[in-house]
Amino acid sequence: MRKIKCAVLGGTGSVGQRFVKMLDGHPFFDLSLIVASKKNMGKRYGDVVHWLIGGDAPLDAQQLKIEGFNLDVFSEMGVKVVFSALPPDVAKEYEKRLAEDGYAVFSNSRAYRFDEKVPILVPEVNPDHIKLVDLQMEKRSGYIVTNPNCSTSGLVIALRPLMKYNLSKVVVSTYQALSGAGYPGVPSVDINSNVIPYIRDEEEKIEDETKKILGVFQNNRVVKKDIVIVSSCVRVPVRDGHLESVVVEFEDEVDLEYIKQAMRMLPSIKNLPTSPVKPIILRNEVDRPQPLLDLYAGEPKRAEGMSITVGRFKRQQKQVRFFLLVHNTVRGGAGNSILNAEYAMQKGYL
Amino acid sequence: MRKIKCAVLGGTGSVGQRFVKMLDGHPFFDLSLIVASKKNMGKRYGDVVHWLIGGDAPLDAQQLKIEGFNLDVFSEMGVKVVFSALPPDVAKEYEKRLAEDGYAVFSNSRAYRFDEKVPILVPEVNPDHIKLVDLQMEKRSGYIVTNPNCSTSGLVIALRPLMKYNLSKVVVSTYQALSGAGYPGVPSVDINSNVIPYIRDEEEKIEDETKKILGVFQNNRVVKKDIVIVSSCVRVPVRDGHLESVVVEFEDEVDLEYIKQAMRMLPSIKNLPTSPVKPIILRNEVDRPQPLLDLYAGEPKRAEGMSITVGRFKRQQKQVRFFLLVHNTVRGGAGNSILNAEYAMQKGYL
Amino acid sequence: MRKIKCAVLGGTGSVGQRFVKMLDGHPFFDLSLIVASKKNMGKRYGDVVHWLIGGDAPLDAQQLKIEGFNLDVFSEMGVKVVFSALPPDVAKEYEKRLAEDGYAVFSNSRAYRFDEKVPILVPEVNPDHIKLVDLQMEKRSGYIVTNPNCSTSGLVIALRPLMKYNLSKVVVSTYQALSGAGYPGVPSVDINSNVIPYIRDEEEKIEDETKKILGVFQNNRVVKKDIVIVSSCVRVPVRDGHLESVVVEFEDEVDLEYIKQAMRMLPSIKNLPTSPVKPIILRNEVDRPQPLLDLYAGEPKRAEGMSITVGRFKRQQKQVRFFLLVHNTVRGGAGNSILNAEYAMQKGYL
Amino acid sequence: MRKIKCAVLGGTGSVGQRFVKMLDGHPFFDLSLIVASKKNMGKRYGDVVHWLIGGDAPLDAQQLKIEGFNLDVFSEMGVKVVFSALPPDVAKEYEKRLAEDGYAVFSNSRAYRFDEKVPILVPEVNPDHIKLVDLQMEKRSGYIVTNPNCSTSGLVIALRPLMKYNLSKVVVSTYQALSGAGYPGVPSVDINSNVIPYIRDEEEKIEDETKKILGVFQNNRVVKKDIVIVSSCVRVPVRDGHLESVVVEFEDEVDLEYIKQAMRMLPSIKNLPTSPVKPIILRNEVDRPQPLLDLYAGEPKRAEGMSITVGRFKRQQKQVRFFLLVHNTVRGGAGNSILNAEYAMQKGYL
Repeated sequence: MRKIKCAVLGGTGSVGQRFVKMLDGHPFFDLSLIVASKKNMGKRYGDVVHWLIGGDAPLDAQQLKIEGFNLDVFSEMGVKVVFSALPPDVAKEYEKRLAEDGYAVFSNSRAYRFDEKVPILVPEVNPDHIKLVDLQMEKRSGYIVTNPNCSTSGLVIALRPLMKYNLSKVVVSTYQALSGAGYPGVPSVDINSNVIPYIRDEEEKIEDETKKILGVFQNNRVVKKDIVIVSSCVRVPVRDGHLESVVVEFEDEVDLEYIKQAMRMLPSIKNLPTSPVKPIILRNEVDRPQPLLDLYAGEPKRAEGMSITVGRFKRQQKQVRFFLLVHNTVRGGAGNSILNAEYAMQKGYL
Repeated sequence: MRKIKCAVLGGTGSVGQRFVKMLDGHPFFDLSLIVASKKNMGKRYGDVVHWLIGGDAPLDAQQLKIEGFNLDVFSEMGVKVVFSALPPDVAKEYEKRLAEDGYAVFSNSRAYRFDEKVPILVPEVNPDHIKLVDLQMEKRSGYIVTNPNCSTSGLVIALRPLMKYNLSKVVVSTYQALSGAGYPGVPSVDINSNVIPYIRDEEEKIEDETKKILGVFQNNRVVKKDIVIVSSCVRVPVRDGHLESVVVEFEDEVDLEYIKQAMRMLPSIKNLPTSPVKPIILRNEVDRPQPLLDLYAGEPKRAEGMSITVGRFKRQQKQVRFFLLVHNTVRGGAGNSILNAEYAMQKGYL
Repeated sequence: MRKIKCAVLGGTGSVGQRFVKMLDGHPFFDLSLIVASKKNMGKRYGDVVHWLIGGDAPLDAQQLKIEGFNLDVFSEMGVKVVFSALPPDVAKEYEKRLAEDGYAVFSNSRAYRFDEKVPILVPEVNPDHIKLVDLQMEKRSGYIVTNPNCSTSGLVIALRPLMKYNLSKVVVSTYQALSGAGYPGVPSVDINSNVIPYIRDEEEKIEDETKKILGVFQNNRVVKKDIVIVSSCVRVPVRDGHLESVVVEFEDEVDLEYIKQAMRMLPSIKNLPTSPVKPIILRNEVDRPQPLLDLYAGEPKRAEGMSITVGRFKRQQKQVRFFLLVHNTVRGGAGNSILNAEYAMQKGYL
Repeated sequence: MRKIKCAVLGGTGSVGQRFVKMLDGHPFFDLSLIVASKKNMGKRYGDVVHWLIGGDAPLDAQQLKIEGFNLDVFSEMGVKVVFSALPPDVAKEYEKRLAEDGYAVFSNSRAYRFDEKVPILVPEVNPDHIKLVDLQMEKRSGYIVTNPNCSTSGLVIALRPLMKYNLSKVVVSTYQALSGAGYPGVPSVDINSNVIPYIRDEEEKIEDETKKILGVFQNNRVVKKDIVIVSSCVRVPVRDGHLESVVVEFEDEVDLEYIKQAMRMLPSIKNLPTSPVKPIILRNEVDRPQPLLDLYAGEPKRAEGMSITVGRFKRQQKQVRFFLLVHNTVRGGAGNSILNAEYAMQKGYL
């Protein structure tokens, strides 16, 4: 198979770096172009990136020359797929132009998440939402597919298997890592030995995105799921990995073992390189999941960080409580968009 | 006024040190005796305590000779009031013997919190529960009064003003500081850049204690409050100060402004040195309360750390969400027991 | 005594806030004017300051309206003394204009530290350097006095008593707190569970400033001390307080007890409110000083954080090693400049 | 090639776990036996180990039954090589008995580091010291080879290439990670947002071990190197990776480029699986090395964490300053002992 050439937009940022790392040696996609802010145009990626992930940037990526946003360059390079880690205001313009120009855009940006024709896609959760792409392509030759916000992505995977049990309400409190704030993000003097109960727009994102992702696709549109979600978002001094305490209320009492079994059995998408064998890993230890220990859950190698980990179940009448951990820049960002692109390819959209 | 001589049991531990610090220069009580583990008997407190609070232990306390548990010493010293920071198994035996021997014991231990005749007292929340002491004194000359667990104490103060609104359910997730685990507590290698979603027995304590504290005292007993409480307890790498996200569900929709006003107006106990002017301080900033900034809320000086701070209110149908911060070893420990002793004195129990 | 009206320049930054806090209720100076960036002009200080110190900004200061830099305002307000926490480029212009206009400027900025006529003053270390002010006043009606860089200030206090022993070389490695980097300073994602062996210009500052401060004032100039200083500066994830490991090499072997005694006996400046009873506090514990425990060393109340703490002495032939701790924004910043102003007053320069 | 069966003593501790991880899939050695404290005897390793490294313990190791120390078991299992992560007091007895019984013991313990016939071996630094083993084997059929203390191991690798330049003095200050303290190690409440300038016996270890390791092997003994070393050891809130600031004094001025080149060219040991391609990696960035970014320096895969990283060189007359980073449980512990065993095999001692 010939690899498809791809570009990363916003490649020097926190999620952009994760795209670059996860695309290194990817069996389907060949990273050919990194677009970043003008001030770095023409410089080697390896010379300008403030690499946050540990070790060094992939050697091939280091050699790439950074480009500005220029559609001519995309076409000269033969790029077909674009991964976007742009801030929302810039994404608004660039992603639209790319989609109109025939590119398949897989975006971590929230710019188009609530466009009626753009899916917020998590293949294990709402695979049929990819059909929204068909609607987009009635009017233009390319399309946009988004991944959810970092904390939403873990939540919807955990909730998916519970949907059959008349779930009426979700109360979620988050423990969100520093890398989720981008770079430079939170000043150290504010968060050292502290927690901050505020992340701009984050609670709204969780509440709105979850309803769309869990919504039903019918009559060429997504009908949002009608549930109450109350989210409380807190930044904690942890480098990577969002922990979430989730309390789900059902219409009727449910059996905890059914709930666990449903989670354990959530099917994975087969035959995609970034798809984890098990989307949800259950831990029985009293003190798991933990960011430190469960961050890179998932196999094979290329899917490390793509599984979420859940544990500490308890039931209180109609309420079920559990904790989940999601790698915020892998499953909660770049990794999910790469999986989306792989899935689009499997479904014939590439 | 002549000061009452008091003792601290378990004076070298985390809460014990807080007793020692808060009793320094106290207008009612004179710290005359520190009881700690046998291996330190006869040594100067200043020489053995691994002082955790910052700066040095109070000079007067440093001079005290540590004693073992010996009722003769209590009587020789003329002690009348005993503050206990003992671990529960030891507390079980010692506190009972002290109460039988006529001492007034104000305890941070959970050993007797669920004894039917022992109040878990927070003067601003359930002042009438102090009448349980009368029941105790039918059979013995002394008594035991406990303070709640650290995270419970903040919660019940915040919930107290809401009780008139048909509150039916509480979902609380905690962000609990390291000092709450005692000493040595959590190994640094486990919690550095990590959060741990497990604190032994903590969720049960919150759920059970809250129902007792918010219960009604009638016919010489406390009838537990019938509400659903789902708590999720997490240790975070913060030195002092427990943050809690609280979602309260009411039977009917409520006005957020009424809720806030009710909290703001919760009356303080007058004329006690450790009683804060306002038990609940409301912050309007988008990102408060925070452990770093709100830890020592409360005035006057002697009541610093005795106010809880609340903020970030929002309403979702019948749910109201807010965050609270409580100083876990002051209001959530030693400070509350000292206030209990002051209150007992005001009410004629000393 | 009538208080002298003073201004703080750069009052919203990290050191600026410390000025505001330490001037609250000051017996000599009355904070009348806070100058900060234009975008905040006209707003209440309390409304714009992102208070970093814990608790809230002093109530009086909260009410002050922020002004831009305007000499008319200084004169209208009757200000005589100016404390500067400006960044060096801005300081360069404003401090000069103020000195020319007759103001006494006490500056934390490094803009003029190496001006031949400007002292880097630490009253306990080089009190006679204040005479440089006379040289300034030959040409203008006001003057500038600077305090050293945060890590230098601790070092020179510790070295002062050793100067009589033919000290030839100093090797210092620092463990510097986050608040030393100003605001926003170091991104949390870079320093969480990490140490960074680089602080821009810091090693040069320590090496150059120390030689000037320890220099001899003769023939109306300061002759720099001729010693070798090798400094290594590292940022660590600690909120406040710089720790330094110091290895001093003497020409001959010295007695460790003499060294300790000389430190212990370093005289304080008498009768100044911000002057600590003992400039150097020696600790004998094996594991002190520590930022957590020794940050606010110094008494009385107003001088908390003005003493440095030293400990862990050892000798290896001609080398003597010790650790020191200095509060980087108190003795290492605002506190030292306030002490300088008090000292200038005592010496008749105000 | 048939693999050699090996055992790990103290396999549940911090360094013991690192042995278990680095031996997983090892091409020479087959981990067949894990010895740990009696209370865990008979249990599956996977059930009792509190895995500190991230992810899970290797699957094969998880299945092993923990044994107590029993020489019969060693022989039944056919073990030939023993890796020891025992505390020194236990090591004293067990390692001796194993060596007398014919086993090759590669130990991270300090119990025998100063035995005249036992080498502290770092193959790239003092390979000829392995000949001390011959002396041991005159009296017994097995032998002991130790690796240095964690902070020493990085230091001697960096100093080795400088030895030809008449180095007279070394001043080293460390920034040591939490995992170096074993488990449970440092209480979080002591080190959170703090640094502690004391690690028991650590300064003595660095000073004494370095002199032995850099000593010359002649006439069947190691003559300790005669240099002055002044070390200052500090614990910092970093999970893994010791940073060290090193100031080296030479008899004469040296060219910094020669020094760097000598480090860069330090030869590696060829054809051993855990031997890194380059023992020393130089970084030119102004702010490297850092624990976060350089912890796992070294290739190939199996040698990750076996290279040390150096940077931030500067010269001040005869002094040269640089920083180094060493992975404290890999090169500074288990990894070095495994390399020692591989080297012993290459040299015919196995």
